Amino acid sequence: MPYDKLKEQVLKANLALVDAGLVVLTWGNASGADREAGVIAIKPSGVSYDKMKADDIVVLSIKTGEVVDGAGRPSSDTPTHLHLYREFPSVNGVVHTHSLNATTFAQAKRTIPCFGTTHADNFHGEIPITRDLRSDEVEADYELNTGRVIVERFRQGGIDPANVPGVLVASHAPFAWGPTPQKAVENAIVLEFAAQMALAGMAIASDLKPIPKHLLDKHFLRKHGPAAYYGQPKA
Amino acid sequence: MPYDKLKEQVLKANLALVDAGLVVLTWGNASGADREAGVIAIKPSGVSYDKMKADDIVVLSIKTGEVVDGAGRPSSDTPTHLHLYREFPSVNGVVHTHSLNATTFAQAKRTIPCFGTTHADNFHGEIPITRDLRSDEVEADYELNTGRVIVERFRQGGIDPANVPGVLVASHAPFAWGPTPQKAVENAIVLEFAAQMALAGMAIASDLKPIPKHLLDKHFLRKHGPAAYYGQPKA
Amino acid sequence: MPYDKLKEQVLKANLALVDAGLVVLTWGNASGADREAGVIAIKPSGVSYDKMKADDIVVLSIKTGEVVDGAGRPSSDTPTHLHLYREFPSVNGVVHTHSLNATTFAQAKRTIPCFGTTHADNFHGEIPITRDLRSDEVEADYELNTGRVIVERFRQGGIDPANVPGVLVASHAPFAWGPTPQKAVENAIVLEFAAQMALAGMAIASDLKPIPKHLLDKHFLRKHGPAAYYGQPKA
Amino acid sequence: MPYDKLKEQVLKANLALVDAGLVVLTWGNASGADREAGVIAIKPSGVSYDKMKADDIVVLSIKTGEVVDGAGRPSSDTPTHLHLYREFPSVNGVVHTHSLNATTFAQAKRTIPCFGTTHADNFHGEIPITRDLRSDEVEADYELNTGRVIVERFRQGGIDPANVPGVLVASHAPFAWGPTPQKAVENAIVLEFAAQMALAGMAIASDLKPIPKHLLDKHFLRKHGPAAYYGQPKA
Repeated sequence: MPYDKLKEQVLKANLALVDAGLVVLTWGNASGADREAGVIAIKPSGVSYDKMKADDIVVLSIKTGEVVDGAGRPSSDTPTHLHLYREFPSVNGVVHTHSLNATTFAQAKRTIPCFGTTHADNFHGEIPITRDLRSDEVEADYELNTGRVIVERFRQGGIDPANVPGVLVASHAPFAWGPTPQKAVENAIVLEFAAQMALAGMAIASDLKPIPKHLLDKHFLRKHGPAAYYGQPKA
Repeated sequence: MPYDKLKEQVLKANLALVDAGLVVLTWGNASGADREAGVIAIKPSGVSYDKMKADDIVVLSIKTGEVVDGAGRPSSDTPTHLHLYREFPSVNGVVHTHSLNATTFAQAKRTIPCFGTTHADNFHGEIPITRDLRSDEVEADYELNTGRVIVERFRQGGIDPANVPGVLVASHAPFAWGPTPQKAVENAIVLEFAAQMALAGMAIASDLKPIPKHLLDKHFLRKHGPAAYYGQPKA
Repeated sequence: MPYDKLKEQVLKANLALVDAGLVVLTWGNASGADREAGVIAIKPSGVSYDKMKADDIVVLSIKTGEVVDGAGRPSSDTPTHLHLYREFPSVNGVVHTHSLNATTFAQAKRTIPCFGTTHADNFHGEIPITRDLRSDEVEADYELNTGRVIVERFRQGGIDPANVPGVLVASHAPFAWGPTPQKAVENAIVLEFAAQMALAGMAIASDLKPIPKHLLDKHFLRKHGPAAYYGQPKA
Repeated sequence: MPYDKLKEQVLKANLALVDAGLVVLTWGNASGADREAGVIAIKPSGVSYDKMKADDIVVLSIKTGEVVDGAGRPSSDTPTHLHLYREFPSVNGVVHTHSLNATTFAQAKRTIPCFGTTHADNFHGEIPITRDLRSDEVEADYELNTGRVIVERFRQGGIDPANVPGVLVASHAPFAWGPTPQKAVENAIVLEFAAQMALAGMAIASDLKPIPKHLLDKHFLRKHGPAAYYGQPKA
């Protein structure tokens, strides 16, 4: 079948979110893109994780949003995912969770400053928060508009989504992404962990400051970009 | 046997509370109603979860409160459950836990404001807290009076228990409910998770505000009521 | 062998502490008394839990403190346990842990007020804290003196150890006890859980008040004493 | 093979870090020294824990830093480990983690005061924090300079690394060590636990004070040094 590999990859990413403790009930979804085929594969809506199979994963056209494979209804957050794939061409995996600490920041409408090198290893700067959606943006096309305020935040802030692979949606919860669904899951894990440490740190030090630029650059760039020297050399 | 299915369902709901990490020691109980038969089934008192079987579940008449099936003594909280089934006709499942964060709010005698969409997905507004029981209400018929102050809180506040499926009993702990025992367990999980995020959020932002009505309505109503579009279509 | 049953019971209590998440590394020990035989059985010192067997449990005379059975060295906290058994005749099980939240209270030198019914179910009032040990009490007979300041606290406060089955040792950690080793473990679990909720509650409500006496009495006495009605009737 | 035993020991230490919950993703590494052979063995860079085998462990000369055994690239933190082995001759095991609470202290640039006997059992005083690295120290030889600021902190503070077997690197995370890799892991566990209790204690008591010297000495010295009486006697 044409989309078997992508569906398997997206199933694994969804299960990895659960294994990482980022999912409560069915709140959480992961998707992946096949740019050549012009499609994404995404979790079905409201299906429990322990029964999910690769065949339940739904495949849709990036351009039209129409289902091209799969019998179920795609995640209700699909319009958000589609908008991110359309506007962020470097992104081939997107995940959404209601993970405890990142969601707490989203509810408090605060960015997560970069307080240490753990954060800096995966995010080249603070994790931004969107503006509130207006009443009319909530009432019609809510999920699409969620994608739009994310893209708006990155455009207006001049932020490259390849360097800051995640965001908090105000009053809602985080989205994270990456060049693959697996990397998107990893970024969601780091986002949650950075949020947890930021919360705890702000409790003991109200004057907590972000790390200086030279330390931020060092940590992000030793793992990303042409001068990376972390991990095993590529074969 | 006439009540086998109900007892099995109630056993599963009790074990699901444990799996969800909401139970310490034997503090926690779930019940379910069969409205046609006019009975509820409930956990026996002080029996450990790892030994509990469907046959240990006790069945009682909703009207008279008399045991109609089962050899053990029902949960000491049975009069609270019975009162909720009598006064809230839309409710067919009730659970009680001492889950950490919800109980912390109950001990602090604070409502849990709706700070985000996670809360709004299952609770259409803040989770209320009862008034303190008076000394005489504690001394005689304590468990029945616990049910009475819950119902009083919903009546006086004009709150529909189908829209706000849970409550905090002051100085004590939460109760949650739903159209089935399984849904009651889910609501208890959301109540605990919302409490945990509210606690953490209030620690970093003393001026935390509830979400606006249009966002509250959107999230609750996309999952509940005639216009719901979340999950797979009913067969 | 004469002490096989007691040693088995004490082994189980030690392993139950680990299962309950109250133990870090080897910090934790449980003991049990056989009053007729005039002995206690206690965990050996510094032995890892996954290798511990009933035969490693050490048996000592309550009166003389001499080892009467077992090849290893008893827990270094044995003098504390022995003193509690000598001075608190209703106690037949003692446990000591460094559980996170109770130890945090011990380090902050604060009692744990009774903020709710969860606490009141097992502790008939606040959980007291000892005074600091003096320098000379630390230098010689430190572990025995730890037992002495516990007993001093209960005597001076007029507290019955059967009603308040636990204490915080200042700058150190909690001890809990009960009529059996199993009940002592249960009380250690409740002490830790009450401490965790008290910590969280104090974070959101600096004016948190203990529950009134009628509610405290109701919860403790429905589980303990002649009028108890919780659990299954005794056969 | 000459280094098989050391590599097996270092593999076990790395896996023990994961079992203790101190590792997120691949952030964490343990090493061990064979002083007679003049080598250390260390985790390979960016290899996932569930696939790691003893043969993946990389062996390097302490003096030259050159790889003498193993096909992969050693952990990117290797220059830090090597520097500690060169400057702290009593150390034969080093571990580095991004454990939640210790890292939170590192990000807040605070030492961890000794608030109780749990801390005092393994650390003879507060756990120090390094100064910030200067911009030029970050840009070139960053990992070696990390080792240098650690050693500088101990030299300038007159602290014996055998008595205080761990440190926080400012804005980064903790390092811990010991006479064996296994002991280094144990010290990393205690460091994290002490940090967690310190964080929680500072939240309820802003005036929290370190324990007095006589209690600090008692706890550290009953476990360490010539007069130790904790654990089973050495055979």
